Amino acid sequence: MITSTSNLSPGQCLALRLERQAPICVGLDPIISRLPDSIDRSDEVAAIEQFSRGVLDSVVGIAPCVKVQAACFERYGSRGVAAMERVITAAVDADLLVILDAKRGDIGISATHYAAGAAATGAHWITLNGYLGEDGVIPFLDAGLGVFVLVRTSNPSGDEIQSPECGAGTVAGLVGSMVGRLGESRRGTNGLSSVGAVVGATKPEAAAELRAVMPDAPFLLPGYGAQGGGVDGVRAALDRRGGGVLVTASRSIIHAFIDQSGDWRRCVKDAAATFAEEIGGLVADQDH
Amino acid sequence: MITSTSNLSPGQCLALRLERQAPICVGLDPIISRLPDSIDRSDEVAAIEQFSRGVLDSVVGIAPCVKVQAACFERYGSRGVAAMERVITAAVDADLLVILDAKRGDIGISATHYAAGAAATGAHWITLNGYLGEDGVIPFLDAGLGVFVLVRTSNPSGDEIQSPECGAGTVAGLVGSMVGRLGESRRGTNGLSSVGAVVGATKPEAAAELRAVMPDAPFLLPGYGAQGGGVDGVRAALDRRGGGVLVTASRSIIHAFIDQSGDWRRCVKDAAATFAEEIGGLVADQDH
Repeated sequence: MITSTSNLSPGQCLALRLERQAPICVGLDPIISRLPDSIDRSDEVAAIEQFSRGVLDSVVGIAPCVKVQAACFERYGSRGVAAMERVITAAVDADLLVILDAKRGDIGISATHYAAGAAATGAHWITLNGYLGEDGVIPFLDAGLGVFVLVRTSNPSGDEIQSPECGAGTVAGLVGSMVGRLGESRRGTNGLSSVGAVVGATKPEAAAELRAVMPDAPFLLPGYGAQGGGVDGVRAALDRRGGGVLVTASRSIIHAFIDQSGDWRRCVKDAAATFAEEIGGLVADQDH
Repeated sequence: MITSTSNLSPGQCLALRLERQAPICVGLDPIISRLPDSIDRSDEVAAIEQFSRGVLDSVVGIAPCVKVQAACFERYGSRGVAAMERVITAAVDADLLVILDAKRGDIGISATHYAAGAAATGAHWITLNGYLGEDGVIPFLDAGLGVFVLVRTSNPSGDEIQSPECGAGTVAGLVGSMVGRLGESRRGTNGLSSVGAVVGATKPEAAAELRAVMPDAPFLLPGYGAQGGGVDGVRAALDRRGGGVLVTASRSIIHAFIDQSGDWRRCVKDAAATFAEEIGGLVADQDH
């Protein structure tokens, strides 16, 4: 249980999970237009909450971690945020590690406020935008959260800002160097830091460059599968211990019921299990 | 009334306001530890809402615009967000332009969700983080919002990421160039674009460089006064028409009652009036 390890750093907790389960994360991005027919959509907020809870039930025991997309809930204003709070509570109660995918980025007292709000939900990690520098990151660490800072995103237009050459590396490398520096003093006894990075699985060359400046950062890897990222992207991101990655997938898991027959929860569960096997095997291969 | 100009672009609406009022924005960053003694703090959310409404009443007719800091409300979870929604409604009803200072930054369907949520509050503009490229900006414009993209922030640690040389300019210049490009096709008849930039008033040299790549972008300038920014920072940011800036101040206005006697709303009102006079005079000087 998380509760029994709450005196450990987020990096240590994550490392302990990854000793026992495949390094996968299920992205919970509920969208009203892509819900199973069996869910009543007359109240959209109630519908995405019901769906989210069903996904949690389906993936617990298979995935160590879920990533909750704040935007899907914020779309519905305060009622949506209240639903998100309940979904996070349910995930924590089910012993899942929770990443709040909020991509916040502010400084000073505002960063402190965002951190307090995120920590109060019970989430263990949060995604952040590092463009404002370490002022936008440290308050979240001080609040006890682990952080995944956006370093290299999987979308095409991210290239314009992230890939230009800048000094010895790229702009993404600048952000990565900051992550690496902040993480040095925040490593657990097992080596994994509480300061992580988001690095698209669609960019193997970038992942290798970035691993060099962030040797102990957990890499959250979106873009595997649906967005074209593959085995090369994951392998390039591995740390010197052959780990340090958390591969996240959303659509390919939570929408697995589309165009399939049978119970939708079973489809989601099967997709998660297949994903865990695939990624678990890939990482295990590296140990030999 | 905004409602009578709702068929105009956000850039046009802003320009019309600035023809009649000083280009200032009051930052609404309510903090429980800095409220007037007359406000009951037993319910923190109710207290910051009451304070926020009092600030709105005090600055209406003086400032054309308020900037609502989402973090101050999100700190309190869904209840705080509900209070923020009511405060924004009150500001819109009072005929104030509202900037939602949310600094969101996501892509694809998530950006669409954030944009829908922000537009539903009634806010007219939103602050965004541009690190993810135009994918993270366009959905907000498509939702009818004006955007201020973080280009050069006023905090010291922003330098590490934003100021390194990168091609012909700096990293901030890269983001600025994107803002300039997106803004070209989104100019109102009066020339001001709906794609703006956040540029710290503490960086006059940066402001001049950035104005060159964003000739028609409104610049939202934080950091004037409390953070050490001054007249030079504002002058350097002016466009070729001697306008195009919106100077924002929070603490120096909304906490003006601290260490002063008398009605707190009067103190806030007087501080806003002084600020309007100062900035209004500064911009008017440029016309001659």
